[in-house]
Amino acid sequence: MHRIGDIAQANLENLYRIFTIPEAPDSTLGQIDQAISDNVAGFLQDHIVALEHELEEIEQDFAHSMIPEEPTFVSDYTEFLKEKLVAQSVHTASPGFVGHMTSAIPYFMLPLSRIMIALNQNLVKVETSKAFTPLERQVLAMLHRLVYDDTDGFYQRWIHDSQYALGAFCSGGTVANVTALWAARNRLCGPTDTFKGISHEGMAKSLKYLDCEGLAVLVSRRGHYSLGKAADLLGIGRENLIAVETDQHNRIDLRLLREHCKRLRGEGILPLSVIGIAGTTETGNIDPLDALADFALEQNCHFHVDAAWGGPTLFSKTHREKLRGIDRADSVTLDAHKQLYAPMGAGMVVFRDPAALSSIEHHAAYILREGSKDLGSHTLEGSRPGMAMLVHAGLSIIGRKGYELLMDQGIERAHLFADMVKAHTDFELVTEPELNIFTYRYNPAWLQQALNDSSNEQTSQINILLDQVTRAVQKRQREAGKTFVSRTRIRQERYGDEPITVFRVVLANPLTTQEILASVLEEQCAIIAQGDVSTLLEQLKILVDS
Amino acid sequence: MHRIGDIAQANLENLYRIFTIPEAPDSTLGQIDQAISDNVAGFLQDHIVALEHELEEIEQDFAHSMIPEEPTFVSDYTEFLKEKLVAQSVHTASPGFVGHMTSAIPYFMLPLSRIMIALNQNLVKVETSKAFTPLERQVLAMLHRLVYDDTDGFYQRWIHDSQYALGAFCSGGTVANVTALWAARNRLCGPTDTFKGISHEGMAKSLKYLDCEGLAVLVSRRGHYSLGKAADLLGIGRENLIAVETDQHNRIDLRLLREHCKRLRGEGILPLSVIGIAGTTETGNIDPLDALADFALEQNCHFHVDAAWGGPTLFSKTHREKLRGIDRADSVTLDAHKQLYAPMGAGMVVFRDPAALSSIEHHAAYILREGSKDLGSHTLEGSRPGMAMLVHAGLSIIGRKGYELLMDQGIERAHLFADMVKAHTDFELVTEPELNIFTYRYNPAWLQQALNDSSNEQTSQINILLDQVTRAVQKRQREAGKTFVSRTRIRQERYGDEPITVFRVVLANPLTTQEILASVLEEQCAIIAQGDVSTLLEQLKILVDS
Repeated sequence: MHRIGDIAQANLENLYRIFTIPEAPDSTLGQIDQAISDNVAGFLQDHIVALEHELEEIEQDFAHSMIPEEPTFVSDYTEFLKEKLVAQSVHTASPGFVGHMTSAIPYFMLPLSRIMIALNQNLVKVETSKAFTPLERQVLAMLHRLVYDDTDGFYQRWIHDSQYALGAFCSGGTVANVTALWAARNRLCGPTDTFKGISHEGMAKSLKYLDCEGLAVLVSRRGHYSLGKAADLLGIGRENLIAVETDQHNRIDLRLLREHCKRLRGEGILPLSVIGIAGTTETGNIDPLDALADFALEQNCHFHVDAAWGGPTLFSKTHREKLRGIDRADSVTLDAHKQLYAPMGAGMVVFRDPAALSSIEHHAAYILREGSKDLGSHTLEGSRPGMAMLVHAGLSIIGRKGYELLMDQGIERAHLFADMVKAHTDFELVTEPELNIFTYRYNPAWLQQALNDSSNEQTSQINILLDQVTRAVQKRQREAGKTFVSRTRIRQERYGDEPITVFRVVLANPLTTQEILASVLEEQCAIIAQGDVSTLLEQLKILVDS
Repeated sequence: MHRIGDIAQANLENLYRIFTIPEAPDSTLGQIDQAISDNVAGFLQDHIVALEHELEEIEQDFAHSMIPEEPTFVSDYTEFLKEKLVAQSVHTASPGFVGHMTSAIPYFMLPLSRIMIALNQNLVKVETSKAFTPLERQVLAMLHRLVYDDTDGFYQRWIHDSQYALGAFCSGGTVANVTALWAARNRLCGPTDTFKGISHEGMAKSLKYLDCEGLAVLVSRRGHYSLGKAADLLGIGRENLIAVETDQHNRIDLRLLREHCKRLRGEGILPLSVIGIAGTTETGNIDPLDALADFALEQNCHFHVDAAWGGPTLFSKTHREKLRGIDRADSVTLDAHKQLYAPMGAGMVVFRDPAALSSIEHHAAYILREGSKDLGSHTLEGSRPGMAMLVHAGLSIIGRKGYELLMDQGIERAHLFADMVKAHTDFELVTEPELNIFTYRYNPAWLQQALNDSSNEQTSQINILLDQVTRAVQKRQREAGKTFVSRTRIRQERYGDEPITVFRVVLANPLTTQEILASVLEEQCAIIAQGDVSTLLEQLKILVDS
């Protein structure tokens, strides 16, 4: 009979310690823990260095590929972490960090996250999640109701009926979009008397059975890059993800959409899904969802809305009208780690029809048994953490009115900042804010004048140089670490086919003040006055004068 | 010009509070936070109720589908959470919970998780993750080295070369397996002079180009259910996921594997990938990886190893030989939230060839720009949390030797428990432990004797009743909340084609003692002596006597 060996008893005891003895309050880790509890903003401010180090330099601290042979003291490791990782991370919660969709999270999320991690539930099945299973179903029902606003009776009927699902919780918007298109694909190519369905027989046989050459997904050119991944993954092919042109407000051009569909059908390609965007990643615009719903109905295809960013606008009585028609979508993607202010790693897709996810249902002998309440039978992912708890906390503690304030404030702030840009003679507002995102660039008055008068060729030459200015300014500003905007490239009718490089701002942090926004522009002007950026401006002057 | 409105100033101030004022130490949430810091085991013991409530009853507490209109005080919400969620969650860290792959996590993971969540980095791109990007690449290199043991030069060359990737970090083993097969599919059907590749043209055109009827994935019948999802998602079709029969040790039958491949090729179906399992989910067995590597080479197809469970066995000098051949795999799945003892939500797939993930590479204008170091260009998921930090912490603090002890102890403990089962006259060991997982069932001595002597038909009748016993015992034991084993159905040669229901134990918690294991069996015997389970035994007696 085997017995737990006597050798290495000391090592064993050390090993048990890490599973049984908490970090002492006066240990390095205990102190950091306390500092975060007491004042997370202060902790981040004190420990993240503002000035950016070169990534190549940081890589030196993460260069070993060998797993350490011997254990390391927690205190030593924590010192390393503090000096090398925390110091060189990004201050995403900073009110001056207005360039990406990752912003501050409410303080209560921190202790609640600890509870979630301490419980270490696995949402794939009831046996490892228990009350977390109904909680997650409730969160899905709440978001479903936010979008679809169905009756009390509807929700009573479906909320906890595990044979059906009002949606799927997942790690983020990408998996949500993939899940939506997966379910749509499997529904369109579902089993019949003579065909076992695409899930069983695969894509090629499915197309043969449907007697078509391919399936297509149509979305505006502002569609998120995750849709390309979905088209690739699902065997649809990126060439069948049709990027439809947009109008001057970055909204899908319905006439061109119709033409694409007609062309595709002519080529024997079946439109699988039309996708509307509620809050484009780059410009924050919203497609005409109601008209898209009409069109999808007419085309008899799935209507998906990617509301990863803009979904929570539905909390606002003032702005929810902008999403009119979203309740006619077959599926809607929402990201809780964006405008529900949950920590990173929480996405969702809700389906109008509680039977829609049945097309991707799967079972296994040891879990997800048929008839079980295991959530894993309707999700792309398997084992998953209890992130739904943090979304539940946000919805409960902040409430509809709290989120409404957050949404309204963000949009007001974007307009405020856009007005500041417009009022400044040396900046050009490139896309107007519809939600809380817009784009602009440095473009001094004299150059704007010249652009108005210039030939196509000169316009193009000016824009190439201005793109360099934008890139240089964005990089310098990021490196200085005081304020941050992101950048992207977008095509603007007035400048022809070639996209221009612009600053992109996302106003999601409620602590961003007017003073901070003013300092963003001031800092950019200061950078422009310096060294090689001012050289670019000289070149522009010569170009315009020539 | 828009201005932040004066109305609802009070509401606004409340809103700002949740982003700026930490929970007071004497608040309900502050107290729980402290209790978890001081003694997480005690907290879980005190707050999770042992006796299971009916799920239908718990659902009543999560029945509202309307998002609360008004904000809720954090203290009230925390009370609700304590009473209704924490109390009714599953004590996964309990040393008596030996039924699933979710177990205890080292104490240092808790404060480190808080740091991770406070930093709220987004690993999709450098601009929102900074040092977390090289850290994650280092973790992937370390695990790559654990599996492939390449040279210092190799790792120096590739570890931080962002045009390549040694692997992809993800939320768990399912996404890891999907990613591996996605990359393999896209490589097999890659672009040529006359074909743009499956990523671009989709599955149907790809099969036409390759002049074949379909792609197949071959794995033993013990393969994880995520592979079925992958076959569905990727457009391969579940019918082309071939479940190869196993030998009496639950290892893939190589002769049958070869026959399947021959048959498939005869049908014009191309083997895309052969998959070996290093630690089957239900029985913990390991396929003959070296022989599978030979076979995959011969068939010129991708060789993937699903080592989500068993991968960390490589830490053990004693047991790593069991995985011989894993370094010949093209890709290997590892789950950090299993035997690397990280919290839920951390998986990985590593690829031998640093160029393998290029087949799924993707870019976007605003992030993941070509040439950038953004991790998101090689992952299925988009936005992702900094979970790699917790894996990095585990590898550093526990070290190779610490993990070796954990692995060795788990396997020893499994053998110890299996011996206890064998020594007990009323239990039948169904599958022997190879790693730290095995299965058994209640089967009293007199019945074992009868089974030996019985006809096929009687054997089947006995097993149907024994299955009911196993199911009833497992459910009662779970409900009582003292100890927990899971159950599954597996086919055993000696009992014919129909699978039998068995208890499944997973010995991963280092705090599980011999006494606890003894109590698992004692509790099962006590349940069997009670009420309706004893009635089943009566029926068995009558059946045997007849």
